[in-house]
Amino acid sequence: MKFQNDKLRENEERDKRIKKNLAKIRHKIVIFSGKGGVGKTMFSCNLSYALLKDGFKVGLLDADITGPNVPKMIGLKGQPVANSEEEIIPLQKERLKVISIASLIPSDAPIIWRGPLRSTALSQFLGDVVWGELDFLIADLPPGTGDEVLTMAQKMKPDMAIIITTPQEIALTDSRRATNMAKRLNISHIGIVENMSGFICPECGYKIELFGRGGGKKEAEKLGVLYLGDIPLNIKVRERADEGIPIILEDDKADISQRIRKIARKIEEILN
Amino acid sequence: MKFQNDKLRENEERDKRIKKNLAKIRHKIVIFSGKGGVGKTMFSCNLSYALLKDGFKVGLLDADITGPNVPKMIGLKGQPVANSEEEIIPLQKERLKVISIASLIPSDAPIIWRGPLRSTALSQFLGDVVWGELDFLIADLPPGTGDEVLTMAQKMKPDMAIIITTPQEIALTDSRRATNMAKRLNISHIGIVENMSGFICPECGYKIELFGRGGGKKEAEKLGVLYLGDIPLNIKVRERADEGIPIILEDDKADISQRIRKIARKIEEILN
Repeated sequence: MKFQNDKLRENEERDKRIKKNLAKIRHKIVIFSGKGGVGKTMFSCNLSYALLKDGFKVGLLDADITGPNVPKMIGLKGQPVANSEEEIIPLQKERLKVISIASLIPSDAPIIWRGPLRSTALSQFLGDVVWGELDFLIADLPPGTGDEVLTMAQKMKPDMAIIITTPQEIALTDSRRATNMAKRLNISHIGIVENMSGFICPECGYKIELFGRGGGKKEAEKLGVLYLGDIPLNIKVRERADEGIPIILEDDKADISQRIRKIARKIEEILN
Repeated sequence: MKFQNDKLRENEERDKRIKKNLAKIRHKIVIFSGKGGVGKTMFSCNLSYALLKDGFKVGLLDADITGPNVPKMIGLKGQPVANSEEEIIPLQKERLKVISIASLIPSDAPIIWRGPLRSTALSQFLGDVVWGELDFLIADLPPGTGDEVLTMAQKMKPDMAIIITTPQEIALTDSRRATNMAKRLNISHIGIVENMSGFICPECGYKIELFGRGGGKKEAEKLGVLYLGDIPLNIKVRERADEGIPIILEDDKADISQRIRKIARKIEEILN
Protein backbone atom coordinates (compact mmCIF):
# COMPACT_ATOMS: atom_id res chain seq x y z
CA MET A 1 0.00 0.00 0.00
CA LYS A 2 2.83 2.36 0.88
CA PHE A 3 4.31 1.82 -2.58
CA GLN A 4 0.95 2.49 -4.22
CA ASN A 5 0.49 5.70 -2.24
CA ASP A 6 3.97 6.88 -3.20
CA LYS A 7 3.19 6.17 -6.83
CA LEU A 8 -0.12 8.01 -6.60
CA ARG A 9 1.52 11.05 -5.01
CA GLU A 10 4.25 10.99 -7.64
CA ASN A 11 1.63 11.03 -10.42
CA GLU A 12 -0.29 13.85 -8.75
CA GLU A 13 2.86 15.91 -8.40
CA ARG A 14 3.77 15.31 -12.01
CA ASP A 15 0.31 16.40 -13.16
CA LYS A 16 0.70 19.59 -11.09
CA ARG A 17 4.08 20.31 -12.69
CA ILE A 18 2.58 19.75 -16.16
CA LYS A 19 -0.26 22.17 -15.42
CA LYS A 20 2.13 24.84 -14.15
CA ASN A 21 4.52 24.37 -17.08
CA LEU A 22 1.81 24.46 -19.76
CA ALA A 23 0.13 27.52 -18.25
CA LYS A 24 2.89 29.61 -19.86
CA ILE A 25 2.04 28.30 -23.33
CA ARG A 26 -0.69 30.08 -25.30
CA HIS A 27 -1.57 27.44 -27.89
CA LYS A 28 -0.96 23.71 -27.95
CA ILE A 29 -1.28 21.81 -31.21
CA VAL A 30 -1.06 18.04 -31.77
CA ILE A 31 -0.13 16.77 -35.24
CA PHE A 32 -1.32 13.27 -35.90
CA SER A 33 -2.50 10.83 -38.53
CA GLY A 34 -4.24 7.51 -38.79
CA LYS A 35 -1.65 6.02 -41.11
CA GLY A 36 2.13 6.20 -40.84
CA GLY A 37 4.44 7.65 -43.47
CA VAL A 38 2.15 10.49 -44.52
CA GLY A 39 4.59 13.26 -43.58
CA LYS A 40 3.63 14.23 -40.02
CA THR A 41 7.21 14.99 -38.99
CA MET A 42 7.99 16.90 -42.21
CA PHE A 43 4.88 19.01 -41.55
CA SER A 44 5.53 19.46 -37.82
CA CYS A 45 9.08 20.74 -38.42
CA ASN A 46 8.15 23.08 -41.25
CA LEU A 47 5.02 24.38 -39.50
CA SER A 48 7.13 25.19 -36.42
CA TYR A 49 9.55 27.25 -38.51
CA ALA A 50 6.70 28.92 -40.42
CA LEU A 51 5.23 30.08 -37.10
CA LEU A 52 8.68 31.27 -35.96
CA LYS A 53 9.06 33.28 -39.17
CA ASP A 54 5.77 34.98 -38.35
CA GLY A 55 7.37 36.20 -35.13
CA PHE A 56 6.04 33.67 -32.64
CA LYS A 57 7.88 31.74 -29.92
CA VAL A 58 7.61 28.05 -30.75
CA GLY A 59 8.46 24.70 -29.15
CA LEU A 60 8.41 21.31 -30.88
CA LEU A 61 7.81 18.16 -28.83
CA ASP A 62 8.65 14.89 -30.60
CA ALA A 63 6.03 12.57 -29.09
CA ASP A 64 7.00 9.60 -31.25
CA ILE A 65 8.90 7.56 -28.69
CA THR A 66 9.59 4.45 -30.76
CA GLY A 67 10.37 6.25 -34.04
CA PRO A 68 11.63 9.74 -33.14
CA ASN A 69 12.79 11.59 -36.27
CA VAL A 70 12.54 15.30 -35.46
CA PRO A 71 16.27 15.83 -34.61
CA LYS A 72 17.36 14.09 -37.81
CA MET A 73 14.98 16.11 -39.96
CA ILE A 74 16.12 19.50 -38.64
CA GLY A 75 19.78 18.58 -38.20
CA LEU A 76 19.66 18.93 -34.41
CA LYS A 77 22.70 17.52 -32.65
CA GLY A 78 23.68 17.23 -28.98
CA GLN A 79 22.04 16.18 -25.75
CA PRO A 80 19.81 18.32 -23.56
CA VAL A 81 21.14 18.99 -20.06
CA ALA A 82 19.35 19.35 -16.73
CA ASN A 83 19.42 22.49 -14.57
CA SER A 84 19.91 22.58 -10.79
CA GLU A 85 16.21 21.85 -10.22
CA GLU A 86 16.51 18.69 -12.34
CA GLU A 87 14.46 20.25 -15.11
CA ILE A 88 15.47 19.53 -18.70
CA ILE A 89 16.71 22.45 -20.83
CA PRO A 90 15.43 21.85 -24.39
CA LEU A 91 17.91 22.04 -27.25
CA GLN A 92 17.45 24.88 -29.76
CA LYS A 93 17.89 25.01 -33.52
CA GLU A 94 17.36 28.39 -35.19
CA ARG A 95 15.41 29.55 -32.09
CA LEU A 96 13.08 26.51 -32.17
CA LYS A 97 13.02 24.72 -28.79
CA VAL A 98 13.02 20.97 -29.31
CA ILE A 99 12.73 17.88 -27.14
CA SER A 100 12.96 14.34 -28.53
CA ILE A 101 13.86 10.96 -27.08
CA ALA A 102 16.26 10.69 -30.04
CA SER A 103 18.46 13.35 -28.41
CA LEU A 104 18.62 11.27 -25.24
CA ILE A 105 19.52 7.78 -26.49
CA PRO A 106 21.91 6.29 -29.11
CA SER A 107 20.46 6.52 -32.62
CA ASP A 108 20.51 2.79 -33.47
CA ALA A 109 19.11 1.53 -30.18
CA PRO A 110 15.60 0.10 -30.45
CA ILE A 111 13.26 1.68 -27.91
CA ILE A 112 11.47 -1.39 -26.60
CA TRP A 113 9.20 0.33 -24.13
CA ARG A 114 5.65 -0.71 -23.41
CA GLY A 115 2.85 1.86 -23.28
CA PRO A 116 3.08 2.98 -19.61
CA LEU A 117 6.81 3.75 -19.89
CA ARG A 118 6.28 5.68 -23.14
CA SER A 119 3.50 7.66 -21.45
CA THR A 120 5.80 8.50 -18.52
CA ALA A 121 8.42 9.83 -20.93
CA LEU A 122 5.80 12.08 -22.53
CA SER A 123 4.59 13.34 -19.15
CA GLN A 124 8.20 14.33 -18.41
CA PHE A 125 8.45 16.14 -21.74
CA LEU A 126 5.38 18.15 -20.76
CA GLY A 127 6.13 18.73 -17.08
CA ASP A 128 9.91 18.69 -16.69
CA VAL A 129 11.13 20.51 -19.81
CA VAL A 130 11.80 24.25 -19.40
CA TRP A 131 9.65 25.45 -22.30
CA GLY A 132 9.28 28.92 -20.84
CA GLU A 133 6.80 31.35 -22.40
CA LEU A 134 5.66 30.06 -25.79
CA ASP A 135 3.06 31.12 -28.33
CA PHE A 136 2.85 27.63 -29.78
CA LEU A 137 3.85 24.17 -28.61
CA ILE A 138 3.62 21.66 -31.46
CA ALA A 139 3.54 17.94 -30.62
CA ASP A 140 4.48 15.51 -33.39
CA LEU A 141 2.63 12.29 -32.49
CA PRO A 142 3.18 8.73 -33.74
CA PRO A 143 0.60 7.32 -36.19
CA GLY A 144 -2.55 5.58 -34.99
CA THR A 145 -4.61 6.02 -31.87
CA GLY A 146 -2.44 4.35 -29.24
CA ASP A 147 -0.95 5.24 -25.85
CA GLU A 148 1.09 8.29 -26.88
CA VAL A 149 -1.89 9.93 -28.55
CA LEU A 150 -4.16 9.31 -25.56
CA THR A 151 -1.57 10.52 -23.07
CA MET A 152 -0.88 13.70 -25.04
CA ALA A 153 -4.60 14.46 -25.42
CA GLN A 154 -5.23 13.97 -21.72
CA LYS A 155 -2.15 15.65 -20.26
CA MET A 156 -1.38 18.34 -22.84
CA LYS A 157 -5.00 19.41 -23.38
CA PRO A 158 -4.36 20.70 -26.94
CA ASP A 159 -6.62 23.40 -28.38
CA MET A 160 -6.04 22.14 -31.91
CA ALA A 161 -5.52 18.80 -33.62
CA ILE A 162 -4.16 18.67 -37.17
CA ILE A 163 -4.58 15.39 -39.01
CA ILE A 164 -2.16 14.76 -41.86
CA THR A 165 -3.37 12.49 -44.63
CA THR A 166 -2.37 11.50 -48.13
CA PRO A 167 -5.16 11.46 -50.75
CA GLN A 168 -5.19 7.66 -51.12
CA GLU A 169 -8.28 5.83 -49.91
CA ILE A 170 -6.50 3.73 -47.28
CA ALA A 171 -4.96 6.81 -45.66
CA LEU A 172 -8.35 8.53 -45.68
CA THR A 173 -10.00 5.62 -43.86
CA ASP A 174 -7.36 5.86 -41.16
CA SER A 175 -7.78 9.65 -41.04
CA ARG A 176 -11.47 9.18 -40.39
CA ARG A 177 -10.58 7.15 -37.29
CA ALA A 178 -8.06 9.80 -36.19
CA THR A 179 -10.56 12.64 -36.74
CA ASN A 180 -13.27 10.81 -34.82
CA MET A 181 -10.84 10.28 -31.98
CA ALA A 182 -10.02 14.01 -31.89
CA LYS A 183 -13.76 14.72 -31.75
CA ARG A 184 -14.28 12.22 -28.96
CA LEU A 185 -11.42 13.80 -27.00
CA ASN A 186 -13.19 17.17 -27.30
CA ILE A 187 -10.33 19.02 -28.98
CA SER A 188 -11.78 22.45 -29.91
CA HIS A 189 -10.30 22.91 -33.39
CA ILE A 190 -9.73 20.01 -35.76
CA GLY A 191 -8.15 20.48 -39.19
CA ILE A 192 -6.97 18.26 -42.05
CA VAL A 193 -3.90 18.80 -44.26
CA GLU A 194 -3.48 16.78 -47.46
CA ASN A 195 0.15 15.87 -48.05
CA MET A 196 1.74 14.20 -51.10
CA SER A 197 -1.03 15.78 -53.12
CA GLY A 198 0.17 15.15 -56.66
CA PHE A 199 3.73 14.97 -57.90
CA ILE A 200 5.52 16.63 -60.83
CA CYS A 201 7.91 14.47 -62.91
CA PRO A 202 11.27 16.26 -62.68
CA GLU A 203 12.03 15.18 -66.28
CA CYS A 204 8.90 15.99 -68.29
CA GLY A 205 6.79 18.07 -65.90
CA TYR A 206 3.87 15.64 -66.09
CA LYS A 207 1.63 15.79 -63.01
CA ILE A 208 1.51 12.30 -61.55
CA GLU A 209 -1.29 11.55 -59.14
CA LEU A 210 0.75 9.09 -57.17
CA PHE A 211 -1.71 8.80 -54.33
CA GLY A 212 -4.71 10.41 -56.03
CA ARG A 213 -5.72 13.98 -55.22
CA GLY A 214 -8.36 16.03 -53.40
CA GLY A 215 -9.47 13.29 -51.00
CA GLY A 216 -8.43 15.31 -47.95
CA LYS A 217 -10.70 18.23 -48.73
CA LYS A 218 -13.71 16.02 -49.44
CA GLU A 219 -13.03 14.09 -46.25
CA ALA A 220 -12.85 17.32 -44.18
CA GLU A 221 -16.21 18.45 -45.58
CA LYS A 222 -17.78 15.07 -44.90
CA LEU A 223 -16.50 14.98 -41.32
CA GLY A 224 -17.36 18.63 -40.67
CA VAL A 225 -13.82 19.70 -39.76
CA LEU A 226 -11.52 22.44 -41.10
CA TYR A 227 -9.56 21.95 -44.31
CA LEU A 228 -6.21 23.67 -43.96
CA GLY A 229 -4.62 23.08 -47.38
CA ASP A 230 -2.58 20.70 -49.47
CA ILE A 231 1.14 20.14 -50.01
CA PRO A 232 2.50 18.41 -53.12
CA LEU A 233 5.15 15.72 -53.01
CA ASN A 234 8.59 17.11 -53.74
CA ILE A 235 11.83 15.18 -54.12
CA LYS A 236 13.87 18.17 -52.99
CA VAL A 237 11.98 18.38 -49.71
CA ARG A 238 12.61 14.69 -49.08
CA GLU A 239 16.30 15.00 -49.90
CA ARG A 240 16.77 18.06 -47.72
CA ALA A 241 14.86 16.39 -44.86
CA ASP A 242 17.29 13.45 -45.10
CA GLU A 243 20.10 16.02 -44.78
CA GLY A 244 18.47 17.74 -41.83
CA ILE A 245 17.32 20.93 -43.56
CA PRO A 246 13.60 21.89 -43.47
CA ILE A 247 12.55 23.38 -46.81
CA ILE A 248 11.16 26.52 -45.14
CA LEU A 249 14.59 27.42 -43.78
CA GLU A 250 16.31 26.70 -47.08
CA ASP A 251 13.98 28.18 -49.66
CA ASP A 252 11.17 30.29 -48.31
CA LYS A 253 10.04 31.24 -51.82
CA ALA A 254 9.50 27.65 -53.03
CA ASP A 255 5.88 26.73 -53.83
CA ILE A 256 5.83 24.16 -51.05
CA SER A 257 7.18 26.66 -48.47
CA GLN A 258 4.56 29.19 -49.50
CA ARG A 259 1.84 26.59 -49.08
CA ILE A 260 3.03 25.65 -45.61
CA ARG A 261 3.27 29.33 -44.60
CA LYS A 262 -0.32 29.84 -45.81
CA ILE A 263 -1.43 26.92 -43.65
CA ALA A 264 0.49 28.43 -40.70
CA ARG A 265 -1.37 31.74 -41.15
CA LYS A 266 -4.70 29.94 -41.23
CA ILE A 267 -3.81 28.25 -37.94
CA GLU A 268 -2.75 31.58 -36.39
CA GLU A 269 -6.09 33.10 -37.44
CA ILE A 270 -8.12 30.20 -36.08
CA LEU A 271 -6.37 30.23 -32.71
CA ASN A 272 -5.85 33.98 -32.20
CA MET B 1 -5.91 -11.33 -4.13
CA LYS B 2 -8.63 -13.60 -5.49
CA PHE B 3 -9.01 -11.30 -8.47
CA GLN B 4 -5.27 -11.31 -9.07
CA ASN B 5 -5.13 -15.11 -8.91
CA ASP B 6 -8.01 -15.38 -11.37
CA LYS B 7 -6.22 -13.04 -13.69
CA LEU B 8 -2.99 -14.98 -13.40
CA ARG B 9 -4.75 -18.26 -14.14
CA GLU B 10 -6.53 -16.69 -17.10
CA ASN B 11 -3.19 -15.54 -18.56
CA GLU B 12 -1.62 -18.94 -18.02
CA GLU B 13 -4.53 -20.66 -19.73
CA ARG B 14 -4.34 -18.26 -22.63
CA ASP B 15 -0.62 -18.89 -23.05
CA LYS B 16 -1.33 -22.64 -23.08
CA ARG B 17 -3.99 -22.19 -25.77
CA ILE B 18 -1.56 -20.08 -27.84
CA LYS B 19 1.11 -22.76 -27.59
CA LYS B 20 -1.32 -25.51 -28.63
CA ASN B 21 -2.74 -23.45 -31.48
CA LEU B 22 0.63 -22.39 -32.88
CA ALA B 23 2.07 -25.95 -32.69
CA LYS B 24 0.09 -26.69 -35.87
CA ILE B 25 1.83 -23.88 -37.77
CA ARG B 26 5.17 -24.67 -39.44
CA HIS B 27 6.55 -21.16 -39.95
CA LYS B 28 5.68 -17.86 -38.33
CA ILE B 29 6.81 -14.61 -39.91
CA VAL B 30 6.44 -11.08 -38.56
CA ILE B 31 6.48 -8.17 -41.02
CA PHE B 32 7.51 -4.92 -39.46
CA SER B 33 9.24 -1.59 -40.00
CA GLY B 34 10.67 1.26 -38.04
CA LYS B 35 8.76 3.92 -39.95
CA GLY B 36 5.12 3.92 -40.97
CA GLY B 37 3.85 4.19 -44.53
CA VAL B 38 6.59 2.07 -46.10
CA GLY B 39 4.22 -0.59 -47.47
CA LYS B 40 4.13 -3.27 -44.77
CA THR B 41 0.49 -4.16 -45.41
CA MET B 42 0.88 -4.14 -49.20
CA PHE B 43 3.82 -6.53 -48.78
CA SER B 44 2.12 -8.74 -46.17
CA CYS B 45 -0.97 -9.25 -48.36
CA ASN B 46 0.97 -9.93 -51.55
CA LEU B 47 3.52 -12.18 -49.84
CA SER B 48 0.66 -14.24 -48.37
CA TYR B 49 -0.84 -14.78 -51.82
CA ALA B 50 2.58 -15.49 -53.35
CA LEU B 51 3.09 -18.29 -50.80
CA LEU B 52 -0.43 -19.59 -51.49
CA LYS B 53 0.34 -19.68 -55.23
CA ASP B 54 3.38 -21.84 -54.43
CA GLY B 55 1.00 -24.38 -52.90
CA PHE B 56 1.28 -23.54 -49.21
CA LYS B 57 -1.45 -23.08 -46.61
CA VAL B 58 -1.26 -19.50 -45.34
CA GLY B 59 -2.83 -17.35 -42.63
CA LEU B 60 -2.55 -13.56 -42.32
CA LEU B 61 -2.87 -11.92 -38.90
CA ASP B 62 -3.40 -8.14 -38.97
CA ALA B 63 -1.56 -7.11 -35.79
CA ASP B 64 -2.09 -3.39 -36.34
CA ILE B 65 -4.84 -2.76 -33.82
CA THR B 66 -5.15 1.02 -34.16
CA GLY B 67 -4.73 1.18 -37.96
CA PRO B 68 -5.93 -2.19 -39.35
CA ASN B 69 -5.91 -2.12 -43.17
CA VAL B 70 -5.61 -5.75 -44.30
CA PRO B 71 -9.35 -6.33 -45.00
CA LYS B 72 -9.59 -3.14 -47.06
CA MET B 73 -6.49 -4.01 -49.09
CA ILE B 74 -7.69 -7.49 -50.05
CA GLY B 75 -11.38 -6.62 -50.35
CA LEU B 76 -12.38 -8.81 -47.40
CA LYS B 77 -15.93 -8.23 -46.18
CA GLY B 78 -17.98 -9.75 -43.38
CA GLN B 79 -17.50 -10.57 -39.71
CA PRO B 80 -15.84 -13.70 -38.34
CA VAL B 81 -18.11 -15.94 -36.22
CA ALA B 82 -17.36 -18.08 -33.18
CA ASN B 83 -17.81 -21.86 -33.01
CA SER B 84 -19.45 -23.78 -30.14
CA GLU B 85 -16.15 -23.73 -28.19
CA GLU B 86 -16.07 -19.94 -28.43
CA GLU B 87 -13.14 -20.05 -30.83
CA ILE B 88 -13.07 -17.56 -33.71
CA ILE B 89 -13.35 -18.90 -37.25
CA PRO B 90 -11.12 -16.70 -39.46
CA LEU B 91 -12.61 -15.25 -42.62
CA GLN B 92 -11.16 -16.47 -45.92
CA LYS B 93 -10.44 -14.66 -49.16
CA GLU B 94 -9.15 -16.80 -52.03
CA ARG B 95 -8.13 -19.49 -49.52
CA LEU B 96 -6.15 -17.02 -47.38
CA LYS B 97 -7.27 -17.17 -43.73
CA VAL B 98 -7.43 -13.68 -42.27
CA ILE B 99 -8.06 -12.12 -38.87
CA SER B 100 -8.18 -8.35 -38.30
CA ILE B 101 -9.74 -6.07 -35.71
CA ALA B 102 -11.17 -4.16 -38.70
CA SER B 103 -13.52 -7.11 -39.38
CA LEU B 104 -14.82 -6.88 -35.81
CA ILE B 105 -15.58 -3.16 -35.35
CA PRO B 106 -17.18 -0.38 -37.46
CA SER B 107 -14.74 1.06 -40.00
CA ASP B 108 -14.83 4.71 -38.82
CA ALA B 109 -14.59 4.02 -35.11
CA PRO B 110 -11.31 5.10 -33.53
CA ILE B 111 -9.71 2.26 -31.58
CA ILE B 112 -8.67 4.10 -28.44
CA TRP B 113 -7.12 1.18 -26.61
CA ARG B 114 -4.06 1.44 -24.42
CA GLY B 115 -1.22 -1.07 -24.78
CA PRO B 116 -2.44 -3.84 -22.42
CA LEU B 117 -5.84 -4.06 -24.16
CA ARG B 118 -4.19 -4.15 -27.59
CA SER B 119 -1.89 -6.93 -26.38
CA THR B 120 -4.89 -8.94 -25.11
CA ALA B 121 -6.55 -8.66 -28.52
CA LEU B 122 -3.39 -9.99 -30.16
CA SER B 123 -3.14 -12.86 -27.68
CA GLN B 124 -6.69 -13.81 -28.66
CA PHE B 125 -5.79 -13.68 -32.34
CA LEU B 126 -2.99 -16.15 -31.61
CA GLY B 127 -4.76 -18.44 -29.16
CA ASP B 128 -8.47 -18.31 -29.95
CA VAL B 129 -8.54 -18.19 -33.76
CA VAL B 130 -8.98 -21.56 -35.50
CA TRP B 131 -5.96 -21.32 -37.82
CA GLY B 132 -5.76 -25.10 -38.25
CA GLU B 133 -2.71 -26.60 -39.97
CA LEU B 134 -0.72 -23.89 -41.74
CA ASP B 135 2.59 -23.74 -43.55
CA PHE B 136 2.95 -20.02 -42.91
CA LEU B 137 1.35 -17.54 -40.54
CA ILE B 138 2.21 -13.97 -41.52
CA ALA B 139 1.71 -11.18 -38.96
CA ASP B 140 1.44 -7.62 -40.28
CA LEU B 141 2.65 -5.44 -37.39
CA PRO B 142 2.21 -1.70 -36.77
CA PRO B 143 5.28 0.53 -37.29
CA GLY B 144 7.75 1.16 -34.50
CA THR B 145 8.82 -0.95 -31.56
CA GLY B 146 5.81 -0.67 -29.25
CA ASP B 147 3.46 -3.01 -27.39
CA GLU B 148 2.09 -4.96 -30.37
CA VAL B 149 5.56 -5.75 -31.65
CA LEU B 150 6.76 -6.90 -28.23
CA THR B 151 3.65 -9.00 -27.60
CA MET B 152 3.87 -10.68 -30.98
CA ALA B 153 7.56 -11.45 -30.56
CA GLN B 154 7.03 -12.94 -27.12
CA LYS B 155 3.80 -14.87 -27.70
CA MET B 156 4.07 -15.84 -31.37
CA LYS B 157 7.77 -16.77 -31.26
CA PRO B 158 8.34 -16.05 -34.96
CA ASP B 159 11.15 -17.85 -36.80
CA MET B 160 11.55 -14.96 -39.21
CA ALA B 161 11.29 -11.16 -39.09
CA ILE B 162 11.05 -9.17 -42.32
CA ILE B 163 11.74 -5.46 -42.04
CA ILE B 164 10.25 -3.28 -44.77
CA THR B 165 12.04 -0.04 -45.52
CA THR B 166 12.06 2.62 -48.19
CA PRO B 167 15.49 3.75 -49.45
CA GLN B 168 15.32 7.21 -47.83
CA GLU B 169 17.75 7.93 -45.01
CA ILE B 170 15.07 8.57 -42.37
CA ALA B 171 13.36 5.23 -43.05
CA LEU B 172 16.74 3.48 -42.90
CA THR B 173 17.50 4.96 -39.47
CA ASP B 174 14.20 3.60 -38.19
CA SER B 175 14.90 0.23 -39.86
CA ARG B 176 18.17 0.01 -37.99
CA ARG B 177 16.22 0.29 -34.74
CA ALA B 178 13.72 -2.34 -35.93
CA THR B 179 16.50 -4.72 -37.02
CA ASN B 180 18.34 -4.32 -33.74
CA MET B 181 15.11 -5.08 -31.90
CA ALA B 182 14.64 -8.28 -33.95
CA LYS B 183 18.20 -9.27 -33.06
CA ARG B 184 17.66 -8.55 -29.39
CA LEU B 185 14.48 -10.66 -29.45
CA ASN B 186 16.55 -13.56 -30.83
CA ILE B 187 14.49 -14.08 -33.99
CA SER B 188 16.44 -16.70 -36.02
CA HIS B 189 16.11 -15.23 -39.51
CA ILE B 190 16.04 -11.49 -40.17
CA GLY B 191 15.60 -10.05 -43.65
CA ILE B 192 15.16 -6.61 -45.22
CA VAL B 193 12.95 -5.70 -48.21
CA GLU B 194 13.35 -2.33 -49.94
CA ASN B 195 9.99 -0.97 -51.06
CA MET B 196 9.26 2.12 -53.19
CA SER B 197 12.65 1.53 -54.76
CA GLY B 198 12.53 3.95 -57.69
CA PHE B 199 9.48 5.03 -59.66
CA ILE B 200 8.83 5.19 -63.42
CA CYS B 201 7.01 8.30 -64.76
CA PRO B 202 3.89 6.93 -66.50
CA GLU B 203 4.16 9.71 -69.10
CA CYS B 204 7.81 9.76 -70.18
CA GLY B 205 9.26 6.59 -68.65
CA TYR B 206 11.88 8.55 -66.69
CA LYS B 207 13.09 6.68 -63.60
CA ILE B 208 12.48 8.95 -60.65
CA GLU B 209 14.36 8.18 -57.46
CA LEU B 210 11.61 9.49 -55.26
CA PHE B 211 13.06 8.09 -52.06
CA GLY B 212 16.56 7.30 -53.35
CA ARG B 213 17.58 3.74 -54.15
CA GLY B 214 19.72 0.84 -52.91
CA GLY B 215 19.81 1.91 -49.26
CA GLY B 216 18.07 -1.27 -48.11
CA LYS B 217 20.71 -3.59 -49.51
CA LYS B 218 23.60 -1.55 -48.09
CA GLU B 219 21.84 -1.45 -44.73
CA ALA B 220 21.31 -5.24 -44.71
CA GLU B 221 25.02 -5.79 -45.40
CA LYS B 222 26.02 -3.34 -42.70
CA LEU B 223 23.70 -4.93 -40.12
CA GLY B 224 24.64 -8.47 -41.15
CA VAL B 225 21.10 -9.57 -42.02
CA LEU B 226 19.55 -11.07 -45.18
CA TYR B 227 18.61 -8.86 -48.10
CA LEU B 228 15.47 -10.26 -49.70
CA GLY B 229 14.93 -7.92 -52.66
CA ASP B 230 13.42 -4.64 -53.79
CA ILE B 231 10.02 -3.59 -55.06
CA PRO B 232 9.52 -0.44 -57.14
CA LEU B 233 6.73 2.06 -56.51
CA ASN B 234 3.81 1.50 -58.86
CA ILE B 235 0.67 3.63 -59.17
CA LYS B 236 -1.36 0.64 -60.37
CA VAL B 237 -0.52 -1.34 -57.22
CA ARG B 238 -1.62 1.59 -55.06
CA GLU B 239 -4.87 2.04 -57.01
CA ARG B 240 -5.71 -1.66 -56.90
CA ALA B 241 -4.89 -1.80 -53.18
CA ASP B 242 -7.37 1.05 -52.64
CA GLU B 243 -9.92 -1.09 -54.50
CA GLY B 244 -9.10 -4.19 -52.47
CA ILE B 245 -7.23 -6.18 -55.13
CA PRO B 246 -3.65 -7.34 -54.40
CA ILE B 247 -1.50 -7.05 -57.54
CA ILE B 248 -0.42 -10.70 -57.33
CA LEU B 249 -4.01 -11.89 -57.72
CA GLU B 250 -4.72 -9.47 -60.55
CA ASP B 251 -1.59 -9.64 -62.67
CA ASP B 252 0.83 -12.37 -61.77
CA LYS B 253 3.04 -11.51 -64.77
CA ALA B 254 3.63 -7.87 -63.80
CA ASP B 255 7.21 -6.97 -62.89
CA ILE B 256 6.21 -6.15 -59.34
CA SER B 257 4.38 -9.47 -58.90
CA GLN B 258 7.37 -11.36 -60.20
CA ARG B 259 9.62 -9.55 -57.75
CA ILE B 260 7.36 -10.39 -54.82
CA ARG B 261 7.15 -14.04 -55.92
CA LYS B 262 10.95 -14.16 -56.08
CA ILE B 263 11.12 -12.81 -52.52
CA ALA B 264 8.53 -15.43 -51.45
CA ARG B 265 10.69 -18.22 -52.92
CA LYS B 266 13.75 -16.90 -51.08
CA ILE B 267 11.77 -17.01 -47.84
CA GLU B 268 10.58 -20.57 -48.55
CA GLU B 269 14.18 -21.64 -49.16
CA ILE B 270 15.47 -19.98 -46.00
CA LEU B 271 12.80 -21.55 -43.80
CA ASN B 272 12.48 -25.00 -45.40
